[in-house]
Amino acid sequence: MEQDSLNYHIRQTQNKWILMVTILMLLFQSSYSSIVKNMTMDWKFFKEENQQQNWKTIQNKDGFKIFTKNGVLLISHTSNQPWIFAGNGKANYTMYRGNFKINENLNEKMALKDFELEEKSDTLTATFSRNNLLKVKVQFYSPENSSQITIKFLEYDPEINRLWLRIQADAQEHIYGCGEQFSYFDLRGKNFPLWTSEQGVGRNKSTYTTFLADLLDQAGGDYYSTFFPQPTYTSSKKYYLHIDDSSYMDFNFKNKEFHELLIWSIPKQIIINSASTFIELLEKLTILLGRQPKLPEWIYNGVWLGLQGGTSIIEAKLNKALEKGIKVSALWCQDWEGIRYTSFGKRLMWNWQWDPELYPGLDQKINILKEQGIRFMGYINPYLAAEKNLCKEASEKGYLAKNMKGEDYLVDFGEFDAGIVDFTNPDAYKWYKELIKKNLIEFGLSGWMADFGEYLPLDIKLQNGESGDMMHNKWPELWARINYEAVLETGKLNDVVYFMRAGYTGSQNYSTAMWAGDQNVDWSLDDGLASVIPAALSLGMCGHGIHHSDIGGYTTLFEMKRTKELFMRWAEMAAFTPIMRTHEGNRPTDNWQFDSDDETLEHFAKMTNIYVELAPYLKSVIQENADKGIPAQRPLFLHYENDERTYSIKYQYLLGRDILVAPVYQENVQQWNFYLPDDQWIHFWTEEIFQQGDHQIDAPIGQPIAFYRKDSQYKSLFQNIKKKLIDNEIIKYI
Amino acid sequence: MEQDSLNYHIRQTQNKWILMVTILMLLFQSSYSSIVKNMTMDWKFFKEENQQQNWKTIQNKDGFKIFTKNGVLLISHTSNQPWIFAGNGKANYTMYRGNFKINENLNEKMALKDFELEEKSDTLTATFSRNNLLKVKVQFYSPENSSQITIKFLEYDPEINRLWLRIQADAQEHIYGCGEQFSYFDLRGKNFPLWTSEQGVGRNKSTYTTFLADLLDQAGGDYYSTFFPQPTYTSSKKYYLHIDDSSYMDFNFKNKEFHELLIWSIPKQIIINSASTFIELLEKLTILLGRQPKLPEWIYNGVWLGLQGGTSIIEAKLNKALEKGIKVSALWCQDWEGIRYTSFGKRLMWNWQWDPELYPGLDQKINILKEQGIRFMGYINPYLAAEKNLCKEASEKGYLAKNMKGEDYLVDFGEFDAGIVDFTNPDAYKWYKELIKKNLIEFGLSGWMADFGEYLPLDIKLQNGESGDMMHNKWPELWARINYEAVLETGKLNDVVYFMRAGYTGSQNYSTAMWAGDQNVDWSLDDGLASVIPAALSLGMCGHGIHHSDIGGYTTLFEMKRTKELFMRWAEMAAFTPIMRTHEGNRPTDNWQFDSDDETLEHFAKMTNIYVELAPYLKSVIQENADKGIPAQRPLFLHYENDERTYSIKYQYLLGRDILVAPVYQENVQQWNFYLPDDQWIHFWTEEIFQQGDHQIDAPIGQPIAFYRKDSQYKSLFQNIKKKLIDNEIIKYI
Repeated sequence: MEQDSLNYHIRQTQNKWILMVTILMLLFQSSYSSIVKNMTMDWKFFKEENQQQNWKTIQNKDGFKIFTKNGVLLISHTSNQPWIFAGNGKANYTMYRGNFKINENLNEKMALKDFELEEKSDTLTATFSRNNLLKVKVQFYSPENSSQITIKFLEYDPEINRLWLRIQADAQEHIYGCGEQFSYFDLRGKNFPLWTSEQGVGRNKSTYTTFLADLLDQAGGDYYSTFFPQPTYTSSKKYYLHIDDSSYMDFNFKNKEFHELLIWSIPKQIIINSASTFIELLEKLTILLGRQPKLPEWIYNGVWLGLQGGTSIIEAKLNKALEKGIKVSALWCQDWEGIRYTSFGKRLMWNWQWDPELYPGLDQKINILKEQGIRFMGYINPYLAAEKNLCKEASEKGYLAKNMKGEDYLVDFGEFDAGIVDFTNPDAYKWYKELIKKNLIEFGLSGWMADFGEYLPLDIKLQNGESGDMMHNKWPELWARINYEAVLETGKLNDVVYFMRAGYTGSQNYSTAMWAGDQNVDWSLDDGLASVIPAALSLGMCGHGIHHSDIGGYTTLFEMKRTKELFMRWAEMAAFTPIMRTHEGNRPTDNWQFDSDDETLEHFAKMTNIYVELAPYLKSVIQENADKGIPAQRPLFLHYENDERTYSIKYQYLLGRDILVAPVYQENVQQWNFYLPDDQWIHFWTEEIFQQGDHQIDAPIGQPIAFYRKDSQYKSLFQNIKKKLIDNEIIKYI
Repeated sequence: MEQDSLNYHIRQTQNKWILMVTILMLLFQSSYSSIVKNMTMDWKFFKEENQQQNWKTIQNKDGFKIFTKNGVLLISHTSNQPWIFAGNGKANYTMYRGNFKINENLNEKMALKDFELEEKSDTLTATFSRNNLLKVKVQFYSPENSSQITIKFLEYDPEINRLWLRIQADAQEHIYGCGEQFSYFDLRGKNFPLWTSEQGVGRNKSTYTTFLADLLDQAGGDYYSTFFPQPTYTSSKKYYLHIDDSSYMDFNFKNKEFHELLIWSIPKQIIINSASTFIELLEKLTILLGRQPKLPEWIYNGVWLGLQGGTSIIEAKLNKALEKGIKVSALWCQDWEGIRYTSFGKRLMWNWQWDPELYPGLDQKINILKEQGIRFMGYINPYLAAEKNLCKEASEKGYLAKNMKGEDYLVDFGEFDAGIVDFTNPDAYKWYKELIKKNLIEFGLSGWMADFGEYLPLDIKLQNGESGDMMHNKWPELWARINYEAVLETGKLNDVVYFMRAGYTGSQNYSTAMWAGDQNVDWSLDDGLASVIPAALSLGMCGHGIHHSDIGGYTTLFEMKRTKELFMRWAEMAAFTPIMRTHEGNRPTDNWQFDSDDETLEHFAKMTNIYVELAPYLKSVIQENADKGIPAQRPLFLHYENDERTYSIKYQYLLGRDILVAPVYQENVQQWNFYLPDDQWIHFWTEEIFQQGDHQIDAPIGQPIAFYRKDSQYKSLFQNIKKKLIDNEIIKYI
């Protein structure tokens, strides 16, 4: 495998968009021109004769400005307010089990005030410097008939390893994206370091949970900690900006006048695009970054039930679930490969092959289950347990990443060590892919959790010669890609689905589904039930549209225990997401489970039935994501862009075009407040019609706060759900 | 008062030091020359003919180096490794009740690689720049026959408001100073922001106490938080460096090769001096910064008993103390001016005059006490309670500092507001000084706690036109100076003593005594008993030699309560400091007090008797501080500089030349470990003789771990202490 081929490819802008954009542009032309003229005063347009084309660039002797095609002032450079700063520094990274402390010794930061500009058809080339120091030659390029602006750094002084770029901002602007963000959806007013890592426990330094996690394991995290960062943001001014690079970055949205993007490298390129609607903008972004294939048909048959403990245990639990009317599409057994015991308790055996001792007869059982309409899913991660056969084989073949001494890099995971397969080595990459094909797909797994991807150490030697700090953020993409190619090459993209927590640019193309990682089994905004909503929405704004979470959360530490109410509320939300899946959590016996009592079983049966009834609609939503990159879970402003209120809503979402969900994310709630944008909304359970505005309704357990549009073409499907549940005696108390 | 006169004056180097230094220099000459030659290779001395003079400077075409007179490479400038960086940034300060968050938007930082050098007799003048950008013209000056090097910034581009200066370092070097440092004595390996503030509660982000204090009041602090920062450090290579400026600074001692000093301004000057011994170095430093007058004679008569509650209560408590044999030199009553009630409990009435309601007959009582040999001490701070007469008078006269709207700046102290007297207004300054003379000194107070000084807000308008960020660190000096001048001008410097917690450069001259501020009533290293030891030692290395602390600590929050054992151990340490003083703490009823039971009264009587018996020795120690700036509490390396072990000892100290103290700072201790440098040390209570080395002895309550030198001229005084205590039946169990 050529290393270059690891870069995602930029797909060509399709003709239909060009046509649509041109029409829209003509409509906006007159008002736009007057805005620009009022703003510019003594500024002179570069090419007065073809203002109607793509971008706009203007200059005077003191500087220049670049506007997007939709009229947004993007870059303004003058010697007093330069847009570019360059310098150099030395980074310090420390990692403890996926948690990072990153700081630097900054050597220099210079404002590159001076510039020389060359204009050439669709290209502006500017050489920035400070009195001939730290020169950077930048090419701004926007081909005719395209709204895309590409920025390339053609030449630069070799001592530069830091750039700070200022993008013009408005005080009223909203910003979204930066990958999967759990604490903030609108990113304005904060800075966001972009570095894949553990998401943290609690993720809020003012909580006791985070304090304890920091104290005991340096694991508390912070508001920006995420498995899936991405140097991409979308502005409410309807443009996106994406930096094509994998170095550490920090996007700072604190300033009223500009966004400052810090990059610890010279990026390959920066790509900006604009559109007249957010939908169109997301389509353009996913043309660039890629889209997820549609999900296999079988997933709509019910929940992926997260069970473990061996063949007989899962069989018994499945039977009980089915008896109670729970719709099950798959069993997901993370311990299919066996377990080990440490002083911390049970851990999985990181040696990716069926364990016939824990799962006797699983090879047969998988087929029997399949005939019943129930799939079997497993687990894998990019590490190999040091003492087992696969790791030994990788080591002998030279496939493991090396430490600075040239030895196999073994990572301590707490009483056991594991090797890291060097995915930059084409042979190792292929070997691991074949392992997935053979041990997982051929064995009969219909999917798996493709866990981890965030832990690449910095003091590592890789076969491609790249440094740990440049490859760290790329690792999730490589890890996704191995899984993707294994499934693609076996022709199973319509039948096998894997789900990941780690991500970076490229996961759009290569990760079939994301899950939100390891939420606490609690109600905290930063790390509990609520946090997965902005996570889904921000990923959607970055081009990944298939998100779900562990029902009830995962992380069970300190005094935390999953309560019955939390499990139920989480299940209510999950019924209105693309995928329903349970996880017993890291301490199953401390957590309330789907089968902990009859009431929970009944409630859960109801939620899985709702999900199954939604299937025809969900399929169309997922199809839209595959075709156009419009995410399944959508922020309200995507369809109500004239409603300023919708830009600040982070705990409600649209599921597709026609369903609005306002999950109950607080404990012990009798009523729930929510906001509806301008449409006629029918409440699923009371069938009351609501108009635009703020509302409060009763929020009993068992009635997810969800509405459908009166005008929806799926109206009769939605109407029938309640009726069908009652007919089937699934619902007794609606 | 002219504003310029507020700057401390640099006293002329005295002739006797010049003579001594010259002799020492001649002794060191031969070995020093060879060191320099070995280091320099192709470097050329500026003036080969007079190498024996003061500093050494060498250059080649690529750079230059400056050595101190004692041969330490101080500055090394090459274009690859420049010593100076310049730039600009915009600071963000937020204050909540004396706790600060400080960060900045850094605009530029440039390495000033280029230089042009001019040599002229004792002066090197260098113009640094980066391709003619951000020029700074620096003068390095070392007059003949002086070891002092002065650095001045003669010219600089007006846009510069940040400097980073790199001073050469060794991997083995130790660094001390930076004002009063509670968590670290040797500062190597950390950075130290220098900004006067509350010291913080807990001062360690990994403790629950700090977590809670941060959560509830933003008050947790950190390892560097201090009332008394100072841009001065002393190197184990026997030089000091002092920056003459009051802006925010951050001294970074993390790097092996250099110390990086960040200054948020262009400082007036930097002064460096070296010596052949630490004693001589401290003498030089205190010639520069000033020294404290010796303490009044009466203080050696016993403890300053911290009492409150009104005339009859303090009278009863005093009588009980005296009955039990406690030696009392003064009553310190912080509530002499009366109190107010808030929902938080009792607060002092910040209106600085006797409250005859709470203290009826105090005007007479003061004289009666004085005849008994017991002084009366009070309290003052730089604020005035808004609703009271003094504040109204100050407001009418225009003496209060203003907010940005030009109104009196009233600070919320929790259910009451207070005005800030504008000490930069010469009339206001004088008015407050006269208030101290009249209401405190003339009334009969023999001293007071001169509290606060750290809270100057940033958004303030002062009469001298200086900004809050430049005056904030200067405020403690101004506050000290008002007190100093009030006492000086009434001719009472030998009779009146005030004690402060806030400090900055200049406090050496103007603050008669420091106390360690508000320790927690606990055993924590960062904020409990132990923390006052590095605090005293680091202040000593900055030129302030008279330190003490609240016996038993002050801050009583959350679950904290002062225990009997903590009170006793703290008293044991205090008996071996210049001043003994108690404080009931902020929640007196939660804290163990000196009179909480008979055993404590007896123990405390013993400790005050030890202190009183030490008086002849203590007086000589305090005299040495007044004459030469050698602190009362000294780090061991001051007298044992060849013993590498002593450079890392932060919880033991020498009291003067002849006593070594190893306070027990842990709970529930039966034995105690300590280290003794090369001398013959006699244990005060067993009279056993100890030699150099590590030792362990029994550490019963009532026997402070203290030793005297066998060769001390005070040997018989020390020997008699135990005997006298037994004769007086003060000690029954030694």
